[in-house]
Amino acid sequence: MDTHHYAVILAGGRGERFWPLSTASRPKQFISLFGGRPLIALALERLEGVVPPERTLIITADDLIEATAGVARQLPPENLIGEPCGRDTAAACALACGIVAARDPDGVVAILTADQLMTDIETFRQTLRDSYAAAASGQHIVTIGIPPTYPATGFGYIEAGDDLAFPTATRFHRARRFVEKPDAPTAAQYIASGNYCWNAGMFIWHVRTMRAALAVFVPELEPLLDAPAAAASPGALRERLAALYPGLRKVSIDYAVMERADNIVMAQGAFGWDDVGTWPAVAGHFAADARNNVVIGSSEMIDASGNVVVSEDRLTAVIGVNDLVIVQSDQATLICPRDRAQEVKLLVQRLSRRPDADKYL
Amino acid sequence: MDTHHYAVILAGGRGERFWPLSTASRPKQFISLFGGRPLIALALERLEGVVPPERTLIITADDLIEATAGVARQLPPENLIGEPCGRDTAAACALACGIVAARDPDGVVAILTADQLMTDIETFRQTLRDSYAAAASGQHIVTIGIPPTYPATGFGYIEAGDDLAFPTATRFHRARRFVEKPDAPTAAQYIASGNYCWNAGMFIWHVRTMRAALAVFVPELEPLLDAPAAAASPGALRERLAALYPGLRKVSIDYAVMERADNIVMAQGAFGWDDVGTWPAVAGHFAADARNNVVIGSSEMIDASGNVVVSEDRLTAVIGVNDLVIVQSDQATLICPRDRAQEVKLLVQRLSRRPDADKYL
Repeated sequence: MDTHHYAVILAGGRGERFWPLSTASRPKQFISLFGGRPLIALALERLEGVVPPERTLIITADDLIEATAGVARQLPPENLIGEPCGRDTAAACALACGIVAARDPDGVVAILTADQLMTDIETFRQTLRDSYAAAASGQHIVTIGIPPTYPATGFGYIEAGDDLAFPTATRFHRARRFVEKPDAPTAAQYIASGNYCWNAGMFIWHVRTMRAALAVFVPELEPLLDAPAAAASPGALRERLAALYPGLRKVSIDYAVMERADNIVMAQGAFGWDDVGTWPAVAGHFAADARNNVVIGSSEMIDASGNVVVSEDRLTAVIGVNDLVIVQSDQATLICPRDRAQEVKLLVQRLSRRPDADKYL
Repeated sequence: MDTHHYAVILAGGRGERFWPLSTASRPKQFISLFGGRPLIALALERLEGVVPPERTLIITADDLIEATAGVARQLPPENLIGEPCGRDTAAACALACGIVAARDPDGVVAILTADQLMTDIETFRQTLRDSYAAAASGQHIVTIGIPPTYPATGFGYIEAGDDLAFPTATRFHRARRFVEKPDAPTAAQYIASGNYCWNAGMFIWHVRTMRAALAVFVPELEPLLDAPAAAASPGALRERLAALYPGLRKVSIDYAVMERADNIVMAQGAFGWDDVGTWPAVAGHFAADARNNVVIGSSEMIDASGNVVVSEDRLTAVIGVNDLVIVQSDQATLICPRDRAQEVKLLVQRLSRRPDADKYL
């Protein structure tokens, strides 16, 4: 393991699409559905043998530090970084860059997220190792693209350019362009062309490369890049972040940098990736019954098919309903069609305006 | 109030169609949805000014006596009669007849049930008073028929014969025949004819008339008719019932007597009756929102219509679902289409075969 390799897991999400199981105080990354372990624990496990805990950092929300420490016990406390408020991924990357650069000016950072699942962990590890190698010179921003398995409209895509013929197990191409979530016909074209991969939101870059890109495309983030080196103590850094963050715009790293930079290369990572962004995506990781119902927990069904039921501490009894998502938490039950699971986010926003919102969010 | 008038409320039902709110230990008659008071309390309230508590009896299951006493505090304890097991309404009527006859050989008994709702209580009271008067001579069995407001297929019907021109506020006809739940075309014919009323399961008869009808049509019930007078104490009666009941067939009073007797008259009772036999029927007693959703409790809805939501201690959040019944209890959530609410009974039967049935039933 190269001592310059760092991993930064972005875990600040609120996981609104996983309400009611995920709540403000227990977001998606803490939900234990997959083998009984929360997503954040799985994300750390995947790094074993690639990046050691002392060079693995988690950036999360200030108020989730304690909960994060509970599921990331192998990390030194100083590797858990809290943001005072969410400002999307460009800000989080700038902070990650600043922190690693302050520790190691030759650091190479893999930006990862806590809310993904992968089935072939060894291939992921190999892809990540090769990506560190490809990013080490600082010439390229490396992103990991996932060869698509269906014409998803829920992911962004990366168009592959020339094959770079690196001498690695992983194939690398120039990234010709990043495109946002396509409509269905466009997604079908992408798949047919064979030239597009899913954008999995994983980026591996030298801290100098990161700094340069951020300084060019999002100059307002420079104070954030400098804050860690300038802070005399963790407390001083916290104060500085509290002063800087509220004034930042919310911008994603994809929009701010990846859609504009011309030095991006894409590592192809066929390791069974899924961002499990919605309940139906979660269901895809569990065995279905003969009528295509996926049940996590306890249920009784009469004439029901295609449903996703999450009901770990209560019973869900259904008669004659199809293709619904049904999720029970301690406080609430959610019911919506599978193909409208994206709207849970909207529902949570509505709930947040209720006087009794605290009971449910 | 005539001292010979008695009311016997049959309250032994298990209310399986109201699962998960009703359970074996808290059946339908104890559910508090209507003005916060259980159905059994409402049934007693309706009798105020017609029959006093000391002449009102409740026949329920042995194991529900304590719960019943809790909501029927105005009744003397000896007026709560427990059946050792359920044997349908013919047996319960025989027991009621025997008990009243032992107290008062000139008793006139109104057989009522605990699981009905009425909107015009004063009209009900007047109908009941007139029915006692019509039954007093012992010549007739009086039943209360409800002028139908729609072609229900969930109720039995009574065909009206000659108008008896009794000098009462209530109109009385001979009952030409009792018919069981019809199919939809037949129900429509009944409504169109103007000659049919719903069978509300309320019967008013002199104890001599009851005894005679039961002795003719269900002679096996004679030991039950005699048991109360023969028993030296409440304990002795309990023992006698425990010996008699298990051997009885389950037969309804409608099937055993009403479909066969030729001395039945029908009082017309237009007092907004409903037997609230299913969740959609319950919903009919509550105001709906602009999209025809009825919500009892707490809910948040996006693009949903025609749903019945019972969610008193938890939140029900729905997106894009229509015409569903959704009921949350402490242990379980039920989801089914409104027009399949009858199948909840089947679901409960299935649940009862689970090893963890006790948690949910």
